Order: sequence, then structure tokens, then C-alpha cells
Amino acid sequence: MDAAGFRAALDGIFEHTPWVAEGAFEARPFATVAALHEALMAVVRSRPIEARIAFVGAHPDLGGKAARAGTIAPASVSEQAGLGLDRLSDAEFERFEILNAAYRARFGFPFVACVRRLTRDAVLDAFERRLANDVEAELATAIDEIGFITRLRLVERVEGPGVPNVAGRLSTHVLDTHKGGPAEGVRIELYEVGRSARALLKQAVTNADGRTDVPLVVGVPLRMGNYELVFHVGAHFSARGVALPQPAFLDAVPIRFGISEPEGHYHVPLVVTPWSYSTYRGS
Amino acid sequence: MDAAGFRAALDGIFEHTPWVAEGAFEARPFATVAALHEALMAVVRSRPIEARIAFVGAHPDLGGKAARAGTIAPASVSEQAGLGLDRLSDAEFERFEILNAAYRARFGFPFVACVRRLTRDAVLDAFERRLANDVEAELATAIDEIGFITRLRLVERVEGPGVPNVAGRLSTHVLDTHKGGPAEGVRIELYEVGRSARALLKQAVTNADGRTDVPLVVGVPLRMGNYELVFHVGAHFSARGVALPQPAFLDAVPIRFGISEPEGHYHVPLVVTPWSYSTYRGS
Amino acid sequence: MDAAGFRAALDGIFEHTPWVAEGAFEARPFATVAALHEALMAVVRSRPIEARIAFVGAHPDLGGKAARAGTIAPASVSEQAGLGLDRLSDAEFERFEILNAAYRARFGFPFVACVRRLTRDAVLDAFERRLANDVEAELATAIDEIGFITRLRLVERVEGPGVPNVAGRLSTHVLDTHKGGPAEGVRIELYEVGRSARALLKQAVTNADGRTDVPLVVGVPLRMGNYELVFHVGAHFSARGVALPQPAFLDAVPIRFGISEPEGHYHVPLVVTPWSYSTYRGS
Amino acid sequence: MDAAGFRAALDGIFEHTPWVAEGAFEARPFATVAALHEALMAVVRSRPIEARIAFVGAHPDLGGKAARAGTIAPASVSEQAGLGLDRLSDAEFERFEILNAAYRARFGFPFVACVRRLTRDAVLDAFERRLANDVEAELATAIDEIGFITRLRLVERVEGPGVPNVAGRLSTHVLDTHKGGPAEGVRIELYEVGRSARALLKQAVTNADGRTDVPLVVGVPLRMGNYELVFHVGAHFSARGVALPQPAFLDAVPIRFGISEPEGHYHVPLVVTPWSYSTYRGS
Repeated sequence: MDAAGFRAALDGIFEHTPWVAEGAFEARPFATVAALHEALMAVVRSRPIEARIAFVGAHPDLGGKAARAGTIAPASVSEQAGLGLDRLSDAEFERFEILNAAYRARFGFPFVACVRRLTRDAVLDAFERRLANDVEAELATAIDEIGFITRLRLVERVEGPGVPNVAGRLSTHVLDTHKGGPAEGVRIELYEVGRSARALLKQAVTNADGRTDVPLVVGVPLRMGNYELVFHVGAHFSARGVALPQPAFLDAVPIRFGISEPEGHYHVPLVVTPWSYSTYRGS
Repeated sequence: MDAAGFRAALDGIFEHTPWVAEGAFEARPFATVAALHEALMAVVRSRPIEARIAFVGAHPDLGGKAARAGTIAPASVSEQAGLGLDRLSDAEFERFEILNAAYRARFGFPFVACVRRLTRDAVLDAFERRLANDVEAELATAIDEIGFITRLRLVERVEGPGVPNVAGRLSTHVLDTHKGGPAEGVRIELYEVGRSARALLKQAVTNADGRTDVPLVVGVPLRMGNYELVFHVGAHFSARGVALPQPAFLDAVPIRFGISEPEGHYHVPLVVTPWSYSTYRGS
Repeated sequence: MDAAGFRAALDGIFEHTPWVAEGAFEARPFATVAALHEALMAVVRSRPIEARIAFVGAHPDLGGKAARAGTIAPASVSEQAGLGLDRLSDAEFERFEILNAAYRARFGFPFVACVRRLTRDAVLDAFERRLANDVEAELATAIDEIGFITRLRLVERVEGPGVPNVAGRLSTHVLDTHKGGPAEGVRIELYEVGRSARALLKQAVTNADGRTDVPLVVGVPLRMGNYELVFHVGAHFSARGVALPQPAFLDAVPIRFGISEPEGHYHVPLVVTPWSYSTYRGS
Repeated sequence: MDAAGFRAALDGIFEHTPWVAEGAFEARPFATVAALHEALMAVVRSRPIEARIAFVGAHPDLGGKAARAGTIAPASVSEQAGLGLDRLSDAEFERFEILNAAYRARFGFPFVACVRRLTRDAVLDAFERRLANDVEAELATAIDEIGFITRLRLVERVEGPGVPNVAGRLSTHVLDTHKGGPAEGVRIELYEVGRSARALLKQAVTNADGRTDVPLVVGVPLRMGNYELVFHVGAHFSARGVALPQPAFLDAVPIRFGISEPEGHYHVPLVVTPWSYSTYRGS
């Protein structure tokens, strides 16, 4: 593949910055997709500070006017849309405008985050946490985030060996230790628990092995943030013919947990009787 | 004590029905307060069905116009007020009016329930469940409820040996099995979880033994219904210097449970690490 | 395949009784190995009672003189040897002789059990339990046991679709909820716990996923009986640098459990911190 | 109280060393028994090293000839007898002789330990651990042990406010989360688990609250060492009418744990169903 082909193949991964692909061209061939991505990021990180600031500066504001107006790069459009940043309420839009302005005023470049790895609350947390950084640390953080963004884009574009892991996994398992086996037919709901609202992400029912037929989340990064699983165990025990008081001691069991590793495996089982339960981060 | 004194001592316990006290006068003396109450209820239960219907009929509607207008017996006033039945919203008032009317139409006497043993949701559940009864079973249920009401009133009025147990108890205990001892300083909230809303009932902080200084509820009946305890364990582990991810896997741990025995002891402990927890109905 | 070939292919599965294979010959072909076995057992079960008694009577005593002298059918030799019934101490030999004699005196045929599905204690338990049966029930039990024996032999001899499940599985998993992940490097021992002795069956060490590289038992029936897993968690926590008291609260954690389903899956996990643990029959 | 009376009151607490009591006489009066003991120990600790070595040197060997011959101080006799050090087998006696000789050769004074706070295994562990000390550290350790010995003796001799805590406590609690309440009638055994043998220390049966009527150990120091509780839960579930397989998954549940704090409270509960259990160090 010649330089033009190489550049074309990577077009759109690093927005508006063809010199990244050009800089990595000489280092070909790459044994793995992960090595290719590391080489691309090494090109960015080796540039002088002004160039790195300009590089970060080429990214759009999160939840900003450009996102609303649809004038940002196509990949950014769908990424920001996934988090609902293109349809913020006016109050939320204003909050993002204020944070973006404060951030730009402090650092001289826009706030960049890999929103596919974050819930909206986690974006706001990151804003606040990162506003406390000094410029150098923050520049490195911004470039790390661009690393996450471009790694995801690259994995979707390029095929080959050694694809870096960009997907997390959330799974569960319900064990009924009153009867001594998997709990079948338990209705489960998964919510994202935001500071001001909760959103139902998924519903599922356990199969004969007490698991869901497919993991609750699989194949994509888990968004950092807070979640709640609700297990409808009262109906399960009633269906099994277990005598329960009215109301049952346990009916809808909520398990609230945080996700901090977007590429991690979170196994959150429920070991339950009509009178007790336990959970833990499993594997 | 002569008959008039006896009647006066019990005045107001059975609303507007002096014949209950009169009927039990001959059976004096009573070894225990519980025996006195059983004798009073036996007087009621031994009356012919018309008399029993009239007896139940002397009670006010729950959440009805009389409660709003304040024209019911003083004891009923404070009992209904405890559940907020004197300050229903218009929609709620209407719901109670409809249920009261349906109940009266079916049975010919007003719906009576010992509201100090019930949450508002449990009152509505009881309405629906009891509307399915036949008249005889429902009359017995209504008189049982009057038994609960008058037992509570009697215990507050009369002193003596053998006072019947009218109080439940809700307690908790937080064990930190990461460090191997009680979790001190954990903030706890207790909510009533209604179908359409939740209400904060109590806040507490665990002491050096991992318990609250006083039980979460003590000395009164527990209202049948659904509850949630929230344990702020993330702050506890942070304060102990345990390194936690951002966000923590466990931060605010909710335990949702139902209470069906107003005079029971519900001990709901939390055994917790930064990565696991269990709970059970203890003792 | 002609009748002679069919008989030859099944030779040795039903000891000294060619008529079983002959009786099933007409029902060919069989869609599955399981169907073949069921057809063979149906031949046995359809015979008159005298023939069934004679059929059971053709089996050798368990742990009897024939086993010691090596004059029984080759398949029986290795099956009884697996349980150590060919090398009983004199006292044990005498115990089996007495039980065999009592059983024969009561039922008129020898005690038959599928010893590959039993520990030695479970054999003795079965002797005692089955001595209480009436003749008809016991004859059916004996033929069921021959069904288990021949099913195992058939699976080892015949290939084809629909092989019946004859293998159980015992597995474990160690979760360290002090650190929030699998416990790697935990030494595990599996013992058979007999009434008078315990025998180390297996040692293993957990891998990075907290599991053993291969299940503790796999591919063969689990012997009904009592077992103990011992998990050396003290060394694990010390190796992780967790400060432990001297002696540690938890060092070698024993989990004692019974197996009643030789073809079942027993997953026996340990969820552990230096100060707590839990286990359950998982899946 | 004059000096002679003071000395007489404390006679026998510090063996053969009247100067300890004399040294503390001036500091009278003591607000608490604990303060008295601290004053006595301060007298010891303030003496020059030769005097402290002589002080320790006045103690008898543990498990030595003097213990066998009965020529040591009366308090020492009963303390050593409590651990069985007066009736060692010849092999054990030899082991203690060798350790005593090695210790004396290294430090020039006899090995002293408060044996009422130790199991025999813990004594042997202490021998080995303390042989690695330098003389100064070991002299301090020996005097600390004399502090434990004399504190126990003092508490038994003197009355007054502020008695120091010398007693530990071992308790348990069995919760049946299959039925949702305390497990009554569960037979429990407590064993000391030594390296070469185990000894049954106590048997008990749970009461209606799932506890033993008195704690398993109370009012005396807990001996540092390893223990096992065995809970006979299979019989409990059978008695409740729960259908169990043969053999039961859980029958006799062992909980093995170490005690390192002789004056601590060890609460070791069992939360159990026929298919699961958990335990933890409670409070």
C-alpha cells in the first residue's frame, strides 16, 4: 500500500489531521492492529506542545453549538448522538456551554472525551475533575481520550490480527439457593442511574441456567457511570409455589453498582432466597 | 372499681359502644391487660350478626369526608392523620371515596382497618383483597382489625401486667468484612417505598459497633408495606483509605424489603466489602 | 449388521446373557445410543420375574470372594477395583461378606450396584437402605443399577449420535471480594470424606480466572458420597500483602458437601475475604 | 493500708519478688485496678536490665521438670495444668525440654508466656518466633507476657472499679434463610484444631433465637490458636421437613477459624440454607 492509500484507509479516524497517518507510514508494516494504533498515537505524542494543542484544538465542543447544528465530523456526530448530546434540553445545553467555556478559558483548547466510554454524568464528572488539572497533565489526558476515540474508530474500520480490546461485558446470573439451582424465568431490568434521572436500558428474563441468553451488554465499551439491576424474585418464588408473606420480604431486588472500566468484564450475580441475598463482582 | 368507673376507664377505646365495656364487667378481675382485651373482643364476637354489623357500622370511613371535616372520634382522628389520610390530594380522596363506596355497597358497613399497622399502599391493597371476601369472612376481618385498633388504644390507656405486644422493631447492623469488624460512621437512610412515591422516614449513622444508637423503628407497630434502606458505604471505605475506582463499584447500597408483621422484629444487616455484600432477615 | 455381529458388538456389556442383545436385535436401527440402551433394558424388564431374578443372580457379589480371587467378568473386575473392593482389609471383607449374605438370604439374588457411581460409604449405605425393600421393589432397584452399569459400558464401547450422559462434573471458583476479582494461586485440595477415613483425591491451584485449569472431576460419574474441598486462602492473602493477624482468622477453609447426582454438575465456589466467606451449589 | 498489708494483698501475683509491690506502694491510692496493675508493671520496667533479667529468670520453665515435679509456684501450677503442660507425653516433654534449653542458651533466662492466653500449638509457635528476637526485644516480650500473667492473677484477687478486661468471648448464631428465621435445635461442636490432633471443647444446641444459651466461651481469655465449629444443619433441615437428597449437599458444616485476640469478641455466625452458607467475623 502506498502512502496515499494508507492515508485514505485511515481517513476520518484522526479528524482533519492527515499528518498523523503520514507520520506513521514509514513504520509499516504493523504486526497487529494494536501496534498500528500505538504508532499513530506515538506520532501525536512526539509533536511539540504547540502542535499537540493545535491537534486537540481541532476537535469540536462536547454538546456544543456545532453538535446541535450538525457541522462536526461525521464520526463525532454519531458518537455525541449516542449519549444524547445532540438533543440536550436548553438547561443542559447551557450547562455544557458554561463548562466548555470555562474549560477553554483555562486550557485554550476544547474539552475532548471519548463519549462512547462515558455516561452523561461521567462526562460532567470528568469536566469538573479535569478542570483542576494543570495544562500539561490536561493536554496528556485530552490526547489519551483521543486515543480511546480513535482506537474505537480504527477497530471498526480495519481488519487484521491483534485487534485491541475495545469492548466490555456486563453479565448476570441468578442462583436460587432455596431450591439449590439456577433461577429460571426471573425478570431483570437494567437502568442507568443518573444524578437527576434513571433510564431503562434493557429488560431480560433468565433462562434455565439462570443467565440471560445474551449478556446484558456485550461488544461495545461499557459507559462509565452508575447502574442498577432490578431482579423480580418475588414473582419467581411465587411461581415456584413458595409461601410468601404479604408483602413479600424480597420482591424487586435492586443491585446498584458503578462501572469504571469500559473494557472490563462485570459479572454481577444474585444468590437469593426469599429471605436473603448476596452479590459480588464476579468474573 | 364499679361498673361506671370501669366503663369510664375504657371510654373511647371502643368508639360509641359502651356495651362492650359493660359486657366484660362481670368477668373481672383480669390477670393481664391481654386478658382484658380478649374479654372485650369476646363480648363483640359473641353478639348476633346484626349487632356486629351495627358495631362495625359505627366506624368512620377511611380517608372519607368525616376525616377531612374532623367530625370523627378523637382517637380515629390521630390514627388517620398518622397515615396522612386527613390530607389526601383530591385525586387520592376520590380514589378512597370510590373504594369506600364500592366496599359499603358490597358489605353494608364501612371499611375498617387498623391504619397504624399499615402504609397507605397497604390500605389500598387491603381494600382490593378484602372486596373479594364473602360477607361473613369480611365481617370477621373487620372485627379483627377493630381488635388491633382497640388493643393499641388499650395499651396506651391501661397499665398493668401482661401488656400485649403491640410494637415491632426494625434494626440494622453494618459489618465491614474487608477490615473484619463493624463499619462505623456509615450514613443510612430509611425510605417508605410507595407505588407512586418514596418518603424519607429516617436518617442515622452507625456507631462503633456498626449499629444505630436506637433501632430505626421501635416502640410502635411497623406499618405493613415496602421499604428501602440505603447504606452509604462508598464514603465509609474512602474514609478508611481503601483505594476505590471512580465511580466506586459500590457506593449507595439499597436494600428493599417488605414488612408483613407489624409486631415483628426485622433485623436487616449489611455485610459488605467494596466489591460484595449480603443481607438477610436476621433476628 | 447381522444378529451375530450385533451380539458380538454388545458382548460383555450384559454379563453372560446373550439373550439381551438378541432380544433387541429386531428393534434396529436405533436413532441414538440412548435409544439402543433403553431397548436393551426394555428386553430385561419385559421378562418374567423368574428370568429377571436369574438375570440379576448371574452377577458377582460386591467385594466378595470372586472379586478377591479374580474370577469375575473383566468389566466387573475393573469396576470393583476402582472402588478398592478387590483389596479390602480383612475386617472390611468380613463386613461385606456379612452384608452380602444377609442380602442374599433376604432376596435370593446377589447385591448389585453400579460402583462407579458410588463411594465405599455409599455402597454400605445402599446395602442398609435396600435391605429394607420388599422383593419386587428391590428387584427393580437391582435392575436399575444394572442399567447404570451397562449404560457406562455401552458408552465406552459404542460410538454414535445421542450418547447418554454418564459423566458428572465438579468445579470450583475462588473470588476474592477483598480485592474485587478472581483469586489466583490458591491451593485447593479435594478429599473424599468417609465415615472412618478421608482420602486426598486431587490437588490443584487456581489460575488467573480463579478456576482450576480443568474441572476437579470431569468425564466420569461423580461417586455419590461426602467430600471436602480445602482452600488455602491465608497464603493467598499473605501473598497479596494483606496484613493478617497471627494466626489468621481464615487460613485453610474447608467446604464439606455431599454428592447425590453422579451425572450432575456440582459447581462449588468460594467467595472470600480475610474475614468472611460464602459458598453455594452453583451452576 | 500499710506497706506490709499492701504487700500481703498482692502476695503471689508477682512470684518470689516482693520488691514489685513495695515499689508501687508510694504511688497509692489507685483509681482503678488497671492503674494498680500498670503501676506494678512500671516498677518492673524501670529496673536496670540485670534486675529485669533476674526478674524473668525467677520464672519456671514451661512444661519443664519443675512443672512435672510440682515444685513451682501454686499459680503457675494451675496455669500450666490448664494447658496440659503437666501431663505431656514423653515425646512432647522432650520437645519442650529442647526448646527451653535452646531458649535459655540464647537469652540466659527461661521462656515465659501467659499460657492461659495460648493453645499448646500457639506456645510452640511463640517459642519459634521469639527465638528469632534479639535479647532486648525478647526481654520486653517476656515482661509483656508477665504483664498478662499478673493481670489475670490480679483480677482474680482484687476487687474495685476499673477492672481491666481479661476475658474474651466466642459466640455464634445460626440463621436459616430457607425459612427466614433463627435455626432452632442445631447441634454445634467446638473443636480446638491442633497441628497433630483435634480436641472437642464444647457441645451446644441452638435455642429459639438461633443462639446458644451461653456463649461458647465467656469470662476467660480465648486461647490463641485454631478452632473449628461444626454445625449439624442436615438434621435441622430434615426435622423441618425440607426434602434433601441422599446424601444431603450440606450436612455437617465446618467453620475453621483462628483466634489471635484473647480478650476479643469473636462472633462467628452461620447463615445457611440446604444449598448455601456464609460466615464472617461478626460483632
